Amino acid sequence: MNRPRVVIAGAGFGGLTCARALKHAPVDVLLVDRNNYHLFTPLLYQVASALLDPGEIARPVRQLIRPLHNADFLQASVTGVDLEDRRLLTDHGPLHYDYLVLATGARTDYFGNASLAAHTLGLKDLDEGLAIRNHILSQFEASRWTTDVSERRRLLTFVVAGGGPTGVEMAGAISELIRLVLRKDYRDLDTNEVRVVLIEAAPHVLVQFVPSLRHAALRSLERKGVEVMLQTKVDAVTEESVNLAGSHEIPAGTVIWTAGVKASEIGRTTGAPLVRQERIKVADTLQVPGHPVVFVIGDLAGAQHGGAPLPMLIPVAMQAGRHVGESIADMVSGGGAKAFRYKDPGIMATIGRNSAVAQLSWLHLSGFPGWLFWLGVHLVNVISFRSRLVVLVNWAWEYIFYDRPVRLIVRARQ
Amino acid sequence: MNRPRVVIAGAGFGGLTCARALKHAPVDVLLVDRNNYHLFTPLLYQVASALLDPGEIARPVRQLIRPLHNADFLQASVTGVDLEDRRLLTDHGPLHYDYLVLATGARTDYFGNASLAAHTLGLKDLDEGLAIRNHILSQFEASRWTTDVSERRRLLTFVVAGGGPTGVEMAGAISELIRLVLRKDYRDLDTNEVRVVLIEAAPHVLVQFVPSLRHAALRSLERKGVEVMLQTKVDAVTEESVNLAGSHEIPAGTVIWTAGVKASEIGRTTGAPLVRQERIKVADTLQVPGHPVVFVIGDLAGAQHGGAPLPMLIPVAMQAGRHVGESIADMVSGGGAKAFRYKDPGIMATIGRNSAVAQLSWLHLSGFPGWLFWLGVHLVNVISFRSRLVVLVNWAWEYIFYDRPVRLIVRARQ
Repeated sequence: MNRPRVVIAGAGFGGLTCARALKHAPVDVLLVDRNNYHLFTPLLYQVASALLDPGEIARPVRQLIRPLHNADFLQASVTGVDLEDRRLLTDHGPLHYDYLVLATGARTDYFGNASLAAHTLGLKDLDEGLAIRNHILSQFEASRWTTDVSERRRLLTFVVAGGGPTGVEMAGAISELIRLVLRKDYRDLDTNEVRVVLIEAAPHVLVQFVPSLRHAALRSLERKGVEVMLQTKVDAVTEESVNLAGSHEIPAGTVIWTAGVKASEIGRTTGAPLVRQERIKVADTLQVPGHPVVFVIGDLAGAQHGGAPLPMLIPVAMQAGRHVGESIADMVSGGGAKAFRYKDPGIMATIGRNSAVAQLSWLHLSGFPGWLFWLGVHLVNVISFRSRLVVLVNWAWEYIFYDRPVRLIVRARQ
Repeated sequence: MNRPRVVIAGAGFGGLTCARALKHAPVDVLLVDRNNYHLFTPLLYQVASALLDPGEIARPVRQLIRPLHNADFLQASVTGVDLEDRRLLTDHGPLHYDYLVLATGARTDYFGNASLAAHTLGLKDLDEGLAIRNHILSQFEASRWTTDVSERRRLLTFVVAGGGPTGVEMAGAISELIRLVLRKDYRDLDTNEVRVVLIEAAPHVLVQFVPSLRHAALRSLERKGVEVMLQTKVDAVTEESVNLAGSHEIPAGTVIWTAGVKASEIGRTTGAPLVRQERIKVADTLQVPGHPVVFVIGDLAGAQHGGAPLPMLIPVAMQAGRHVGESIADMVSGGGAKAFRYKDPGIMATIGRNSAVAQLSWLHLSGFPGWLFWLGVHLVNVISFRSRLVVLVNWAWEYIFYDRPVRLIVRARQ
């Protein structure tokens, strides 16, 4: 008799944890992802800011599933789901499933503003991280040989839209890249011509955090030379500038958009009801209503947590992945799916060298203690022992010598 | 009074060494390169075979010239030279020079065969190394889901054309990548369906070496599972196969071309007389005849060494760079250029794990001793202390665990 086939769409933190939870279940697991690697997203901004190389934060999916003898991998883009015929649709053909786990995550949301989609850089994927790195370094190269002062100031203006953890980390990292490293590469650079601007529509950065930590983060950003513009909305972005609501304009050669995120496009293609941010509406078991063999986890799942939607965070995805893996194992042996409860381990964000905020149930940390805590948590969780060694060498090197080793403008030839 | 301006085209081993030799001369130096980094080319094949990341073998030119207070850098592509008006032509406009050093190296030579240019991968540049890595890994992903046996065999056939050091190193590295690492990623892989073929037109691999070392290298390649086809010429390459002279055909999804190299296109644009491999004919002072302020070094220089052309090797480029830097310093202070004499330190090539050949004037090494020697020389010469640490971690990791950490298919988004 054939074993039930579990197809997991997405090899991020949710999908991978789910596959691991099914290790001993009598099922065949197929992980599907458009990339051949699992990405440690919390350090993606360090690739974008020329500190780490891709190999330090990404690991081949096939290597990660080697210990899972019932799992295989297919590199393919998911294009939709045929819920009636139980088939996951991909650019590699349709895949039959007995159980389906949708874990394709989230993507950048431009809120329908085409100028944002055309003229800003996103930071969701490894190739986007490399594109930001190439772009920032190219702006500096161009600025060195530009004699027109206003054009040079434009080239040296870096705008980050969105004051969440990604925006705060990116703005802090760009400012340090410039003030600690590139300043030494460009002897004639006038740092007064450089601007790093963080734009946030809300009255605070890091709205998820308690007020004392928000303020600590804001002070830290300002000390690092980041101009923080609160209660400011981006209307449009052109090749030349950012246009703010109220007709103010910032000439800028670089705009990074972290201000919007929504679930991946798979949600819509299922035809299932969606909730806020295009997440798929799910029961408290994370099943799609009416389709008990289809589960949704991570950023794509529109689940509730004490009346509010579950945040788009790695711990949510991992806990849900484990829970759904166990539910499927139970169902295969005749049981049923149980309700999912999220246990919040706390949240963190770093603003660069010597500064981070961490909000745990029992502890609030900021500044240097917060940074040490951030460092420890990330070093322990980076994906392999080898990466940990290499990342540690790079971090120590940067810390001591104020260096960013990977200041390379590189594109793989097609 | 303005100081004389020395323009150096190319930031490879020759150009960089020349800039360093001019450190204390009363001149302004401008280094020009199309990339913003200096590449440690001897380890490029390790990027192509998924062992090292770009940041481990490349370093920003601006960082390398920080100690040179009279040097600056321009990222631009050189398009030609106007010898009469003393201007280097670039895609960033013309650059006036008082002294010019041409050090733009060599490129792949397809001998006018358009099918080679269209359907083979080169290995001269970082982006080409990344393209080879992406391509090899993609072939394996595709082969996993191909049920047609002959198509699968075609996808799993990797042909390297050219039995020089680059071809030998690449073939050995691909074979080890497959047999030691990918075999574990693809549980169902039948290694009998995999072919790594090294094609060489001459009767030997590594013709530059003495017969005993050639034979050692050949045996080592064969032990590592590389099929070596000697006295074999490639007629044409298609999307599907390699066509050999004599109507034999090898169905292959990957063809890497290392069998031809010629000087960079700058040579022809100067209008100066060229010698073999389109190298610029130079006097024994490395000056272009009739243009005493124009020097040529490295692979681009058509200089003689005991009746034969100087080999296209890093030590040649570095020694010539130092020599020309000193000549220019002398000329600025009223002296003249002296003849260049190459001191041959020996040659080396590695065939992978535990095996290399090294031919020094006083010593011939092969096998494990050769490999230890190769390892020492490369570790000492890798471009920075940090790279050395990271490369050492990666090498030790691979050696112990038979792992290739960077098995990632990544392209920077444009």
